[in-house]
Amino acid sequence: MDQAEWFAVDWGTTHLRVWVFGPDERLLTCLTSDKGMSKLKPHDFEPVLLDLVASYLGQGVCPVIVCGMVGARQGWAEAPYLSVPSLPPTGETGLRVTPTDARIDLHILPGLSQKKPADVMRGEETQIAGYLARDPNFFGTLCLPGTHTKWVQVSAKEIVSFRTFMTGELFSLISGHSVLRHGIGAGGWSEPDFLEAVDDAMTSPQQVTSRLFGLRAEGLINNLSAEATRARLSGYLIGLELAGAKPYWLGQDLVVIGAPDLSALYARALAVQGLPSRVQSGDDMTLDGLKAAYHALKEARG
Amino acid sequence: MDQAEWFAVDWGTTHLRVWVFGPDERLLTCLTSDKGMSKLKPHDFEPVLLDLVASYLGQGVCPVIVCGMVGARQGWAEAPYLSVPSLPPTGETGLRVTPTDARIDLHILPGLSQKKPADVMRGEETQIAGYLARDPNFFGTLCLPGTHTKWVQVSAKEIVSFRTFMTGELFSLISGHSVLRHGIGAGGWSEPDFLEAVDDAMTSPQQVTSRLFGLRAEGLINNLSAEATRARLSGYLIGLELAGAKPYWLGQDLVVIGAPDLSALYARALAVQGLPSRVQSGDDMTLDGLKAAYHALKEARG
Repeated sequence: MDQAEWFAVDWGTTHLRVWVFGPDERLLTCLTSDKGMSKLKPHDFEPVLLDLVASYLGQGVCPVIVCGMVGARQGWAEAPYLSVPSLPPTGETGLRVTPTDARIDLHILPGLSQKKPADVMRGEETQIAGYLARDPNFFGTLCLPGTHTKWVQVSAKEIVSFRTFMTGELFSLISGHSVLRHGIGAGGWSEPDFLEAVDDAMTSPQQVTSRLFGLRAEGLINNLSAEATRARLSGYLIGLELAGAKPYWLGQDLVVIGAPDLSALYARALAVQGLPSRVQSGDDMTLDGLKAAYHALKEARG
Repeated sequence: MDQAEWFAVDWGTTHLRVWVFGPDERLLTCLTSDKGMSKLKPHDFEPVLLDLVASYLGQGVCPVIVCGMVGARQGWAEAPYLSVPSLPPTGETGLRVTPTDARIDLHILPGLSQKKPADVMRGEETQIAGYLARDPNFFGTLCLPGTHTKWVQVSAKEIVSFRTFMTGELFSLISGHSVLRHGIGAGGWSEPDFLEAVDDAMTSPQQVTSRLFGLRAEGLINNLSAEATRARLSGYLIGLELAGAKPYWLGQDLVVIGAPDLSALYARALAVQGLPSRVQSGDDMTLDGLKAAYHALKEARG
């Protein structure tokens, strides 16, 4: 078995992913586990990680760069937020935790906080770092769609400000647990319904919570299909978000970073509003951000 | 045991209530059960009702006037919607169901539907009938707050149009199941936070889904109290609704009908916007509506 030179770790609420790097930047393997932060107590983290990577450890000390909810108050150890405006965190600004096992040298990257309006992120800052490692002169807005979608203003390598919208979580709650669950399929899609709903919500954001009940009524009296119901629900919520995020996208160079399907959906919603955007894979950006943090650490140590 | 002359029944999704009337409008008792529509199959309804009222049945045939989700497709029998504009339903326009037991004469009051924008109600139409029985010349708007809040335009004894907002259901989903659940107590309240949030959402409805996540952030970085979090969540959702319902309240005579605490909350939110309203008990209106339907039936039968 090859020995690792360092580990890049993305430890979120529900999952854990470890990229194992050998000498010369060679990716040896990527390990995954469903032992996310929400299932663990603080003292569980080290054994879970060691279980996963033990066979790649040798005699030397391996740096481990970690991002995500692992650094929250309920995580392995609380990595205090960096306050915006701020450069993205690096291995140097990470929280150094002394593990029980001397073979690992642990650095937890901090999230970002904003005082007014109050906002926080943990994990996305590393994707931003990854993007800026590729495009260091970027000046514009990054949109990171997900459970809690982030809109991030970037200038001169700094994260200047950001706003979070609860869009993904609302979609999941409403489609799975509200009265709309009766009329929504597990899959299926109607693109015209989606785009029309985006437009409607951007024009009349104040109508969204009545439009939502309207989907139920359309199902009962006009047999609205499950596909159309699902697409319109998504469209109303994303349209409401786009209306609120207008100061972030208006006249800005725009990059969407996230899971491919969801990013493509945002890009299509933006495109029909006449807003061009580029799409980047969230996983790639996370890994690039962890790599950038590792290299900064190595450099600082000479 | 007194014998009943008729029964007034409010059969909703989660609960069942039966008012038992003797001769001369005398209320003998009110019976309740948690056997709501969502727990029953169509053939369960008659035995559940008979179990509850059997001791009040004599040799004669007793009219039973029923409103609520009992008339939905998944209920006892589907009472097809009346389409607005429409007078509220009465015993005469109710669906007559032939029960197995000849001692009851069953009338299920239909709900209302609206073609465009698509909307439906089941239960509230009976509260509206109850209100109009007291105030037959009312010209204005009724607001019926609840899981699915209704705004109803009434003119010349008719229900002209209505809109439903998913406000109550969203409050319950977000406070109980979203990331905000960590920062929200089961009770407690902050009136200034509530009123400020109403105002904020009315001014900037497009910001509501980011304000929601902001509550989580305020909890994490500014220790926002559980009381304030709860009150603001409620305020943002009600403010968003008031912004959307503006065509219904602007310059209208306004009556709020519902559970006392919730109605009072709406009335306070409206008052700080300079909108006076009167409040009526939803239970009283339901009973009055069922009574009105019974009397219309009796009259029609001579």
